Amino acid sequence: MKYSELDRTGLLQEQDRCRKTYEALKAQGLKLDMSRGKPGKQQLDMVSGILTILSDPADCLADGLEVRNYGGFSGLPSAKALFADILGCRPEECFVGGNASLNLMYDTISKAYTHGLLHSEKPWSKLEKVKFLCPAPGYDRHFRITESFGAELITVDMTTTGPDMDRVEALVKDPAVKGIWCVPKYSNPDGIIYSDETIQRFARLRPAAPDFVLMWDNAYCVHEFDGDFVPFPDILSLCREAGNADMVFEYASTSKITYPGGGISVMAASEANQKYMQKLMTVQTIGFDKVNQLRHVLYLKDKAGTLALMKKHAAIMKPKYRMVLDMLEREIEPLGIAEWQKPKGGYFVSVNTMDGIAGRTLELCKEAGVVMTPAGATYPYGVDPRDRNIRVAPSLPPVEELQQAMEIFCVSMRLAALEKLLAA
Amino acid sequence: MKYSELDRTGLLQEQDRCRKTYEALKAQGLKLDMSRGKPGKQQLDMVSGILTILSDPADCLADGLEVRNYGGFSGLPSAKALFADILGCRPEECFVGGNASLNLMYDTISKAYTHGLLHSEKPWSKLEKVKFLCPAPGYDRHFRITESFGAELITVDMTTTGPDMDRVEALVKDPAVKGIWCVPKYSNPDGIIYSDETIQRFARLRPAAPDFVLMWDNAYCVHEFDGDFVPFPDILSLCREAGNADMVFEYASTSKITYPGGGISVMAASEANQKYMQKLMTVQTIGFDKVNQLRHVLYLKDKAGTLALMKKHAAIMKPKYRMVLDMLEREIEPLGIAEWQKPKGGYFVSVNTMDGIAGRTLELCKEAGVVMTPAGATYPYGVDPRDRNIRVAPSLPPVEELQQAMEIFCVSMRLAALEKLLAA
Repeated sequence: MKYSELDRTGLLQEQDRCRKTYEALKAQGLKLDMSRGKPGKQQLDMVSGILTILSDPADCLADGLEVRNYGGFSGLPSAKALFADILGCRPEECFVGGNASLNLMYDTISKAYTHGLLHSEKPWSKLEKVKFLCPAPGYDRHFRITESFGAELITVDMTTTGPDMDRVEALVKDPAVKGIWCVPKYSNPDGIIYSDETIQRFARLRPAAPDFVLMWDNAYCVHEFDGDFVPFPDILSLCREAGNADMVFEYASTSKITYPGGGISVMAASEANQKYMQKLMTVQTIGFDKVNQLRHVLYLKDKAGTLALMKKHAAIMKPKYRMVLDMLEREIEPLGIAEWQKPKGGYFVSVNTMDGIAGRTLELCKEAGVVMTPAGATYPYGVDPRDRNIRVAPSLPPVEELQQAMEIFCVSMRLAALEKLLAA
Repeated sequence: MKYSELDRTGLLQEQDRCRKTYEALKAQGLKLDMSRGKPGKQQLDMVSGILTILSDPADCLADGLEVRNYGGFSGLPSAKALFADILGCRPEECFVGGNASLNLMYDTISKAYTHGLLHSEKPWSKLEKVKFLCPAPGYDRHFRITESFGAELITVDMTTTGPDMDRVEALVKDPAVKGIWCVPKYSNPDGIIYSDETIQRFARLRPAAPDFVLMWDNAYCVHEFDGDFVPFPDILSLCREAGNADMVFEYASTSKITYPGGGISVMAASEANQKYMQKLMTVQTIGFDKVNQLRHVLYLKDKAGTLALMKKHAAIMKPKYRMVLDMLEREIEPLGIAEWQKPKGGYFVSVNTMDGIAGRTLELCKEAGVVMTPAGATYPYGVDPRDRNIRVAPSLPPVEELQQAMEIFCVSMRLAALEKLLAA
């Protein structure tokens, strides 16, 4: 029954029950981590073939390039082709980087500050004010990049079809608004796929700033854990068709395809953007790790090869997400104290509790040995104005541990809700 | 005999002889590259063991870290220990990066501009003027980093004991002078080892700028190609002892130990600097490629293992350098038209021709199919005021090709000298 329908006595009885459950779970002295979207050991073991796929030095001559030596600054041509196949863009629109797409995103913003982007009137460091749009709940590491350079972060609400586009279109009329962070497919943390209309409205945006940048982090572009691959449009083409060719930078990586600690990444952008950025980047590096780029090309081959591998990841991931969703449905839904999306891909389940209990829920979790993403992390400056969003990351623990962690999570949320209701 | 002692008739006869030789060499239609310090194929093939040294997923748990997953932001502890062993510093003073130390250097300067260094009063982008000292001849990619951020580059002459320290000590009295680029062992391109006195004077520098930075690129720290390993002092300790603990950032990489296109790199600095920089860098990346860091730890093991491998590189490199030096001694020395150091390590031979003929020499080389580092590249802004320094990079071509390239180089230099003398 719904907590809101319980009288004080009912609430106290429920609190008593929950406390006993909580104390019993706490007494087990568990140490469980659901804080980050980390692949589990089973997933890492599954791709072990990549460790040895490049074993013959004779194979190191690829695309006419000696991958072991200097050269090939913008990436191995076949690695560009692989990412272009996956993203639906052109190989010449791809710059292939090291193991972290985050690093490429940081670099884009950093260069906007130190040198300006292609259509900047001056470097952002020379401007009095830079504002950046942050659809929230969103990815803390995105927000922190722009925050670290001193930009003012403006929260835009997420809807079930993507960021609130009416608000976005209104905000970009301000020339100080220089960009927006987007995770268009299986958004972090909601797992929402931006609707076609949302994506079209992004492509057709008419920002006042000539150097407005759509930071399009396609981190989960092939990351279905339930059901078939869901196609997505090529944002570079859409922007080009809308006369916004140079507005978008798209990012992706193999972090959750092969290894988070040893993958490869891509920055896709118009050829004009590539020309401009690469001229700046030649000062920075002679090129990223081509040996590892070649390993990935040999191992993943193409989009089809990548999707086949993602099916195997899905087989490992799906039971974990089922566990989380089933548990929430059974333990929380009847109480009316939280809501959540039911994603079919990505790495998270995003739970919105009743207002004001997210922080307390996670505090109780921590006391009982379960570490989750800190409350507020999904909002700019780490402050969730309604203190209600919790990002659940079920990928790392084995299913058995996950069940224990979810038991602790659910009872912690119940206790937090009861505390709040009883104090009212 | 010396060209300066020839009369006009003698010069014209010599020019005629050289032209015939040059045209005959040119007619061979060669395509040879001596432009960059690239290891040759034989060197790359020698280290093929690193491709397969990490083949068992069970080995991927190292130092208590799952190297395949996220985490371990500042680098694998054993990789820090490896670099600390090589450089003589402490593991906790090491941040282990990706395949390019250049990228770490760029990042240091970039962060100085966007956020400031530990002792900066404000970010350098907020200053009217930043000056940077560039010992020359030096490494073009160093100079270009500071140039790209708008710093004014000030040339400091190289001597046989390192940069002209009287000049350095005088220049750092200007608070706008924010740092200096150094390659302390087998300097690029001269192959000079800074003397103990030079290094001590650097450590004891008293710059007016509180955030003056000694960019200490120890690129060739274990790169002897002739004779035994030459020990070098730990610059971090020396600076610490001189009360300048936070003044220095040291860089190194395995680019010329394993693979240029797939190695690992290090940024070594005081613990206070590491704390400050790493706080900024956590915004940028979750960590560099730990799988590859582990490969390097398993393959190189420690300093002793690294030095043993460098002996094998030396066996391949030495005949190439011998060829260059012998040829210069035979073909050029008697003519009195150039001078050069005779390095025992590093990747270059730096030739100073008579004034005003370096550019023309390389033009003639190019016409005959030999690409060298462009004239002027070793000076700030790519301008050699005396047009005389030429960086010869003999590592890439096999010895036979190198001989042909050097024949072309020597006769080109002779022709350039004769043109100049005849025009006088």
